[in-house]
Amino acid sequence: MRVAFLGLGRMGTPMAKRLAGAFEVSVYNRDRAKAEPFGALGARVTGSVREAVAGAELVVTMLADDAAEEALAFGSGGLLETLAAGAIHVATSTIGVATSDRLAAAHAAAGQGYVAAPVFGRPPAAEAGQLWILAAGPEAQVAACQPVFAALGQGVFPLGEKASTAHALKLAGNTLLVTVLEALSEAFAFGEKAGIAPETTLKVLNTALLKSPLAEAYGGAVVRGAFEPAGFALRLGLKDVSLALQAAEAFQAPLPIGSLLRDRLLAATAKGYGHQDLAALSRMSREAAGLEA
Amino acid sequence: MRVAFLGLGRMGTPMAKRLAGAFEVSVYNRDRAKAEPFGALGARVTGSVREAVAGAELVVTMLADDAAEEALAFGSGGLLETLAAGAIHVATSTIGVATSDRLAAAHAAAGQGYVAAPVFGRPPAAEAGQLWILAAGPEAQVAACQPVFAALGQGVFPLGEKASTAHALKLAGNTLLVTVLEALSEAFAFGEKAGIAPETTLKVLNTALLKSPLAEAYGGAVVRGAFEPAGFALRLGLKDVSLALQAAEAFQAPLPIGSLLRDRLLAATAKGYGHQDLAALSRMSREAAGLEA
Amino acid sequence: MRVAFLGLGRMGTPMAKRLAGAFEVSVYNRDRAKAEPFGALGARVTGSVREAVAGAELVVTMLADDAAEEALAFGSGGLLETLAAGAIHVATSTIGVATSDRLAAAHAAAGQGYVAAPVFGRPPAAEAGQLWILAAGPEAQVAACQPVFAALGQGVFPLGEKASTAHALKLAGNTLLVTVLEALSEAFAFGEKAGIAPETTLKVLNTALLKSPLAEAYGGAVVRGAFEPAGFALRLGLKDVSLALQAAEAFQAPLPIGSLLRDRLLAATAKGYGHQDLAALSRMSREAAGLEA
Amino acid sequence: MRVAFLGLGRMGTPMAKRLAGAFEVSVYNRDRAKAEPFGALGARVTGSVREAVAGAELVVTMLADDAAEEALAFGSGGLLETLAAGAIHVATSTIGVATSDRLAAAHAAAGQGYVAAPVFGRPPAAEAGQLWILAAGPEAQVAACQPVFAALGQGVFPLGEKASTAHALKLAGNTLLVTVLEALSEAFAFGEKAGIAPETTLKVLNTALLKSPLAEAYGGAVVRGAFEPAGFALRLGLKDVSLALQAAEAFQAPLPIGSLLRDRLLAATAKGYGHQDLAALSRMSREAAGLEA
Repeated sequence: MRVAFLGLGRMGTPMAKRLAGAFEVSVYNRDRAKAEPFGALGARVTGSVREAVAGAELVVTMLADDAAEEALAFGSGGLLETLAAGAIHVATSTIGVATSDRLAAAHAAAGQGYVAAPVFGRPPAAEAGQLWILAAGPEAQVAACQPVFAALGQGVFPLGEKASTAHALKLAGNTLLVTVLEALSEAFAFGEKAGIAPETTLKVLNTALLKSPLAEAYGGAVVRGAFEPAGFALRLGLKDVSLALQAAEAFQAPLPIGSLLRDRLLAATAKGYGHQDLAALSRMSREAAGLEA
Repeated sequence: MRVAFLGLGRMGTPMAKRLAGAFEVSVYNRDRAKAEPFGALGARVTGSVREAVAGAELVVTMLADDAAEEALAFGSGGLLETLAAGAIHVATSTIGVATSDRLAAAHAAAGQGYVAAPVFGRPPAAEAGQLWILAAGPEAQVAACQPVFAALGQGVFPLGEKASTAHALKLAGNTLLVTVLEALSEAFAFGEKAGIAPETTLKVLNTALLKSPLAEAYGGAVVRGAFEPAGFALRLGLKDVSLALQAAEAFQAPLPIGSLLRDRLLAATAKGYGHQDLAALSRMSREAAGLEA
Repeated sequence: MRVAFLGLGRMGTPMAKRLAGAFEVSVYNRDRAKAEPFGALGARVTGSVREAVAGAELVVTMLADDAAEEALAFGSGGLLETLAAGAIHVATSTIGVATSDRLAAAHAAAGQGYVAAPVFGRPPAAEAGQLWILAAGPEAQVAACQPVFAALGQGVFPLGEKASTAHALKLAGNTLLVTVLEALSEAFAFGEKAGIAPETTLKVLNTALLKSPLAEAYGGAVVRGAFEPAGFALRLGLKDVSLALQAAEAFQAPLPIGSLLRDRLLAATAKGYGHQDLAALSRMSREAAGLEA
Repeated sequence: MRVAFLGLGRMGTPMAKRLAGAFEVSVYNRDRAKAEPFGALGARVTGSVREAVAGAELVVTMLADDAAEEALAFGSGGLLETLAAGAIHVATSTIGVATSDRLAAAHAAAGQGYVAAPVFGRPPAAEAGQLWILAAGPEAQVAACQPVFAALGQGVFPLGEKASTAHALKLAGNTLLVTVLEALSEAFAFGEKAGIAPETTLKVLNTALLKSPLAEAYGGAVVRGAFEPAGFALRLGLKDVSLALQAAEAFQAPLPIGSLLRDRLLAATAKGYGHQDLAALSRMSREAAGLEA
């Protein structure tokens, strides 16, 4: 199978490497320097979307946000113009529901396929082919993606024919992740004022109650104050929660915790913490409790 | 060791049974019917606090709320009057920080011991001696409780000399638990409006992201609509979150998610769901999304 | 002065009538039936934007939302295409900051003027020429609008050269309005559970404390249950608060009360109250307190 | 009529002066220095509650909080012990509903009267006899207070036989006041990031929309940064909102804006602003927007 991979950032790079070992792969990245190393892996390094997708049956995108995905799809020389009829755009980026709907409609009108396939898992999981994949789109198109999914992930959750459903659930998941982080942060500040060290609060609550590796990972980063360099930048967390809230408004399904998170993340960004790791959200709870940074 | 156990409710009963198999135990319950079966287990069934604690080195209480704990301790014929000098009151009930502080001071003034030892775990864990115990109080007193803790739990977290610290952390934990339930409930309603069945949302988010048995248990109850009979009643969840917020005010450490939870739980109670399981909190998210009950 | 007026809804109709009495006016409305009566007032009734704005120095728009304003400006045959060089688009609609910025840039690029001039006041104030006008844009252009402002309002607040500033402040104002309504609604439900009739709560709080005609108007509508027909529809309140929150995100200035209001308005909409008057927001507080509708 | 006045703080002092000019008055204050000047006004300056209330038909209290009111009523030598049968305790302090209920029950059991009569208005209004009085209690007792109310206020709102109802409404009012302040503070920070000076935001929103002297007073203090000395201290605002929330829990009527306010006030207190004027609450919105103090 011939696969094009567009977007070689922190997640895209290890994902593309997995695919390069299994398929005939071409890669493209706006900053070509990140693409060059793929030549040594047997992939075709290209200088444009058009060149990358020529002859590809599947085109996987992993981009930073809606603006990047839209530019790459709708822009001049973009996927809508260059993708072959019958080829499938597999959007693994975390994008908004409205953008995903717009992509689905445009690709369908152009005789192209579109599958939404956002993933859960961080770069090491991507490297190990251990992502979890949320897949939605026309059944035959999703089926055509299975070999790629098998190379990338440890499991696929099929979510039906409407592609944007997968992005909706991904956004709900990221909101849940930020919720856990905020809840732990509040508990840490509360505990600290009660005389309990944050590492103790984390150990007790996660050993005796939550038992979640996610809480361990993010709570641990908070306890260590490991805010830079960012694994998952706080401003990206703000982007995802905002996208979830936009979808919530369209669906008429309020997310009150999500609203609270958005305001916290926004304040953190206004204070200059946007480039730090999401774990820096904990600074807001500390400051609100009058604790030193 | 001679141990008195006061309060034979859903949690107290299996805990007292564990102790009856290991120590010389006397039991007391306001409604004596629940105490009677302990005679067959070799325990001494008594009709008053005074009678129960006579000769006891440790007195374990597991009561529904602050009012019950205060009545039993400060009331006429209560622990303050009847506990022998040097004997220790081991408060495993989930009570407020101010009440715990008041008990600590009063027992100390009376020459009695006081250890706070709230637990995480539901009745089956209590039955299996698999609770987690948060223990705080004067070091020698906590040490004296270790045989009892060993019979009740799979682990003890020592939290220092100030007894109420253990209750503070227990309240933070219960707030975290309600947070997870609320976050899942919001995700379920959001997902449902996006076309995803709640069981799918739960499966995806807990398999790929949270991986928490707690989320599985509470989220599963929501998905099944298993609201009656209540395991952990919603009104008790409201009580605990309110106690956490009272402590948060005293500590000057805001818990904004806690505040949001209190309002949701309060509305659920006003609507008549207080006697249902905490999982019924999910009804609020469904109603706010215009979904049928 | 030759003035075109586009958008003859609840606010636009009385505003256009004021102008018809003072200037040479042409009118246009998508549904022409609402435009016809203006013939009797000496205005030129037209069937297209192009026809309406031909020869006009100022073009006043008063439309329902961003989509309508954008369609009328950017659509085929819209203002960008048809407005004469040097003529000014005076946007009195309540629209988002980003849309206002986009209009400003596009009109400037087309050699046309653009003044943002949203208003405070309800239809009777519009009829009496008693609106308050928030005006922003290039100084000379705002100056050119003064005769029109004088016919429409009792006062103009100049807000500087950046047009969208006026829309930002208008959105902040509408958020404040919804805040007052929500705060009163919460007080009414709280009071009712305390045994105080809502009309008494309103009378006491507004006589002794707030002394605001706005509170009197909206609080009175709540007390009377006057939800239909809508004066200012709840769904439009949701639109405005959402636009304020979008701007807040762009400005990095959180509006936590605004977030709470959005969720309440969204839930009210999901429950089917969106077409009712904004005063129906009070139903949410009543329901959360377990009070009958 | 013989009237005793207990509590000569910022509000009590001007109120007691009004009464000293109209009735036979005795005064008492914990710190006697504040009582001494009343000798020159013809009042009897006393050194104990017992001495002050001897022979009094009405005893007016104006104290800082529930603890002070409870100590003065229930403490040794307090009102319960010393008030003559048939004499009436008129509680003008802003206290909690539960405390007010407890006072009502205790006084009734002691054959004494109890009228709740909290007031709206600041010290200058107290000096001018222009307070607004919320009065509740047994009808005959409230009637007996009318001469005192006439000397203190410009109007009385009768709220029925249950005394605590008046305190409930007073707490709702103070919550509304803090809501207006928070809403303005959010609008100021939002406006400032949009390029609008806070004084302009205040002028526009209060001239064109809210038209409330309360908004003028508190918004003006924010604009001027007039935080010290405190007129109404922020920590007292926190106390009142917390009391409102306690009552809301008892009434089962959520106050979501109140919850948000509590967290903001609590964070402000944790940051060390509790002794400043309530207007300092605005600092939280500025900080959350990344604006300098």
